Amino acid sequence: MENSGAQGEFVETPIAVRYAETDQMGVVYYANYFVWFEVGRGAWCRARGFSYREMEAEDGRFMTVAEAICRYKAPARYEDDIAVRTYAEASKDKVVRFNYEILNKATGRLLATGSTVHVVTDANMRPARIPDRYRPLFGLPRR
Amino acid sequence: MENSGAQGEFVETPIAVRYAETDQMGVVYYANYFVWFEVGRGAWCRARGFSYREMEAEDGRFMTVAEAICRYKAPARYEDDIAVRTYAEASKDKVVRFNYEILNKATGRLLATGSTVHVVTDANMRPARIPDRYRPLFGLPRR
Amino acid sequence: MENSGAQGEFVETPIAVRYAETDQMGVVYYANYFVWFEVGRGAWCRARGFSYREMEAEDGRFMTVAEAICRYKAPARYEDDIAVRTYAEASKDKVVRFNYEILNKATGRLLATGSTVHVVTDANMRPARIPDRYRPLFGLPRR
Amino acid sequence: MENSGAQGEFVETPIAVRYAETDQMGVVYYANYFVWFEVGRGAWCRARGFSYREMEAEDGRFMTVAEAICRYKAPARYEDDIAVRTYAEASKDKVVRFNYEILNKATGRLLATGSTVHVVTDANMRPARIPDRYRPLFGLPRR
Repeated sequence: MENSGAQGEFVETPIAVRYAETDQMGVVYYANYFVWFEVGRGAWCRARGFSYREMEAEDGRFMTVAEAICRYKAPARYEDDIAVRTYAEASKDKVVRFNYEILNKATGRLLATGSTVHVVTDANMRPARIPDRYRPLFGLPRR
Repeated sequence: MENSGAQGEFVETPIAVRYAETDQMGVVYYANYFVWFEVGRGAWCRARGFSYREMEAEDGRFMTVAEAICRYKAPARYEDDIAVRTYAEASKDKVVRFNYEILNKATGRLLATGSTVHVVTDANMRPARIPDRYRPLFGLPRR
Repeated sequence: MENSGAQGEFVETPIAVRYAETDQMGVVYYANYFVWFEVGRGAWCRARGFSYREMEAEDGRFMTVAEAICRYKAPARYEDDIAVRTYAEASKDKVVRFNYEILNKATGRLLATGSTVHVVTDANMRPARIPDRYRPLFGLPRR
Repeated sequence: MENSGAQGEFVETPIAVRYAETDQMGVVYYANYFVWFEVGRGAWCRARGFSYREMEAEDGRFMTVAEAICRYKAPARYEDDIAVRTYAEASKDKVVRFNYEILNKATGRLLATGSTVHVVTDANMRPARIPDRYRPLFGLPRR
């Protein structure tokens, strides 16, 4: 599931396009790529050895989205086998950035690229420190 | 917004079909009718003088869905002006049932009918009494 | 992926719950179970040796939903590993019925059951025959 | 529905937050802002005197999304009354750009800003000219 790429290590997760995700243009509706990004983030966390569900439930820390970008290059269609490649970097203490590539697995074609920027917050959406045990996972020095 | 019909009083709420709600067949994806039912339920509550948001936040009561049914008669399309007609009845103390009609407002055509059955629960999804102040709103005798 | 059950042969397909599928109650929003049913239908078709995408694109036949029902027994939560079990029967020439069970794979608990009834139509949503080559797949006698 | 603002004329359209749009964090899931942008685009078209549905159906022209960006400033919650303000500009012949502001109508607070860039294409997603009759609507000189 993991590999080295131009942007460093990524985690790849497969997605089969659902009928629900298409629109009347016959392709995947543009907002759904952001759902796929979220699936990629979750897979990235699990590949790093933790679950985002536990980070919320046990540590009371949330990765609140501050920015989301997607650039669309080619359409995805119903039943296409898609790969989401997720790269992460913690640029600052309370900020985590993910980059994504969406590919058609059969053709290898790059369908979209994107990124999301997250502020680590508590349950009340106030900025909060990344818990120490997650710091190395995000490439931050231990405290 | 309110009227008498075959099934008694209903609350009607307008919905404009979103592009996101269509699928590659060129019509509204079938699961989205249940989202429209939810919009109808919320409108029904407000027409009865309360907000479902407050029922959750202030009373800690949730209308957990136990059953959902939709029968589809004719398709809805992008930009169609839709009306959701919502009828409610509390058959039992902890159970509330809503019935719905989905209509095309321009043609008057009935597009779908449906119903949802809800169990009133606490935040942990354990069955709980309908708070007294909501009982008459659901047609239940006061305590 | 296939097994014998109380209702006969089913096709089982795994689904990991997405964050997007949860709602503010902390569980999967009820309409999303119908999306999972659709994922189950697609898997059922592939297990029978055909693709629903091709049935639409090559044969011009659509399985238009006429009725959808779900009964909810226990909630599904973010990152739960879900199994959708799909059973199909063609009761009549132009009507196909699918039954579904949604299970939590870790606990084996049955979370929901449901069904969808489909009318086979052409692209203009007029009832149409099931193409001959699909008839045995749906348990109908060959012509 | 129309007004002058810092970025010029905008079209404002109201949206009531649906329960379906929330996630387990208790706020609107981030991908749904892009659905609201789409609602804003449709309202913008209608305010300019045309329907995007007709542009697709009658002129065979599609506004294929090439880029989508959202910056999130404050959360939206169930039953919040939201306003989407949509601004459009056609920077080039085959490219249309929309900018958006998402506001909480009760508080006036700016919740998010964003933009989408669209390439005008034919039904096969090949770049195509904006039909002459739409050019002035997008601020382009007549031919």
